[in-house]
Amino acid sequence: MMGFSVAVCQMPVCAQKSVNLECMEAMVESAVRRRANVVTLPEMFICPYDVENFRTCAEEEGGPVWQRCSDIARKKHIYLSAGTIPERDADGRIYNTAYFFDPEGRQIAKHRKMHLFDIDVKGGQYFKESSVLSAGDQITVFDTNFGRFGLCICYDVRFPELVRLMALKGARVIFVPAAFNMTTGPMHWELLFRSQAMYNQVYVIGTAPARDENSGYVSWGHSIVTGPWGERIAMLNHKPGIKCIGIDLSMADQARDEIPMLKHRRTDVYELKEIMR
Amino acid sequence: MMGFSVAVCQMPVCAQKSVNLECMEAMVESAVRRRANVVTLPEMFICPYDVENFRTCAEEEGGPVWQRCSDIARKKHIYLSAGTIPERDADGRIYNTAYFFDPEGRQIAKHRKMHLFDIDVKGGQYFKESSVLSAGDQITVFDTNFGRFGLCICYDVRFPELVRLMALKGARVIFVPAAFNMTTGPMHWELLFRSQAMYNQVYVIGTAPARDENSGYVSWGHSIVTGPWGERIAMLNHKPGIKCIGIDLSMADQARDEIPMLKHRRTDVYELKEIMR
Repeated sequence: MMGFSVAVCQMPVCAQKSVNLECMEAMVESAVRRRANVVTLPEMFICPYDVENFRTCAEEEGGPVWQRCSDIARKKHIYLSAGTIPERDADGRIYNTAYFFDPEGRQIAKHRKMHLFDIDVKGGQYFKESSVLSAGDQITVFDTNFGRFGLCICYDVRFPELVRLMALKGARVIFVPAAFNMTTGPMHWELLFRSQAMYNQVYVIGTAPARDENSGYVSWGHSIVTGPWGERIAMLNHKPGIKCIGIDLSMADQARDEIPMLKHRRTDVYELKEIMR
Repeated sequence: MMGFSVAVCQMPVCAQKSVNLECMEAMVESAVRRRANVVTLPEMFICPYDVENFRTCAEEEGGPVWQRCSDIARKKHIYLSAGTIPERDADGRIYNTAYFFDPEGRQIAKHRKMHLFDIDVKGGQYFKESSVLSAGDQITVFDTNFGRFGLCICYDVRFPELVRLMALKGARVIFVPAAFNMTTGPMHWELLFRSQAMYNQVYVIGTAPARDENSGYVSWGHSIVTGPWGERIAMLNHKPGIKCIGIDLSMADQARDEIPMLKHRRTDVYELKEIMR
């Protein structure tokens, strides 16, 4: 099966977890009415993006938020890229974690953000995820009825190594729950998604929270779907909204036939000991 | 020394080598009058981009075109990224080769295109460099008074592995003589240069031939200078022209301090045996 429909849900996120969960369910239902087969949620959709919230809102895998996501995937019979939530593990470590559910409500993938977002732009954005979060150490690729997908989170998408490895492992669509800000968003958001899609001849889908100007961390929004020619297929603005887009994986095959970059890679020359430093 | 001025010479290219050489010298002189320290020329600036021309126009390293380039670099006391010319080696193999000269006229770098351009876009561009050309097998990084530079050619810039390796080897400015076409140019030219600059926090400079609508291979032009924030600093249109741009390498340092992506790479996780396949 080559074609399916993906819905990007650019949720507003507030301080109350219960309100966010209700909003999530309403948006998923709306997406399903538009015949989406795969529904995607933003990074940190249950709490405003803030290191203190990561601690207070964290839940273990299988906890109440996880369960609500599993339930709605099963009830609506959809694949659900359940954004990210702060995950507390048995040792008390906290991760920024993305779960992916199948139409039976089973968790078929889990990605812990592996590149933590520690930046300090003069006159712009400061953030230090590593003050609270631990980093994952797995590359996440998995199979669905619609083909092989990849999953990573926000700052992870800045690393060509990671997306290349997902593509080489066979991912054809890469899901990226993300929350860029008012500094990095206008500078790099669209450029990153379009270029990763172009280099790897895959679909790359970024789902962000809607903008809240009163939040401590102001989201850029602009949830985006990019295709295997590096084209922008759809992009929201900063407001809450849903985009539902048809994905045709034969387009990725065509791109790879016509400009066979993945075959032209000079793996005989790349000095990988250098990449390892 | 951190700052210098680079001139991008978007040359018209015709069928007569002697005319092209005269044009090259006139443009270099014009760039020098604008106080350029580094002058760049396009891919295949001595003959129209065509596999048959590659055979007939090829010269050995140190041949007449090489000598003219060395001479003008010495006379004008500039660094010269001498575009590319078809190079015939002692065994008769032909390469698409970029030479780089210092202000004494000495060749300080040489890059043979390592990813050959074999594409077949339905309803768009067909080209098969490998029918005539052999591929280089070296990554090219070298030192100048202005810092460490990298050099690659056109289709090479589509490979994140190569530009990443040049950056990791210390290149801060990457020169790319190139000739995209009317299919790949509008789709990918600017996206490639801006994204390679952004991922690697380097300057990336693409120098193309001006457009000749009557040519068998129609160049997109749009010679471009991109900076370490992924920003487009300057871009020509399709006509012959020169842009002279100040380069400040402290901007690359600042980008790397503020968003330290090169430090955040998870070389402990990237499974490089996969990249090698």
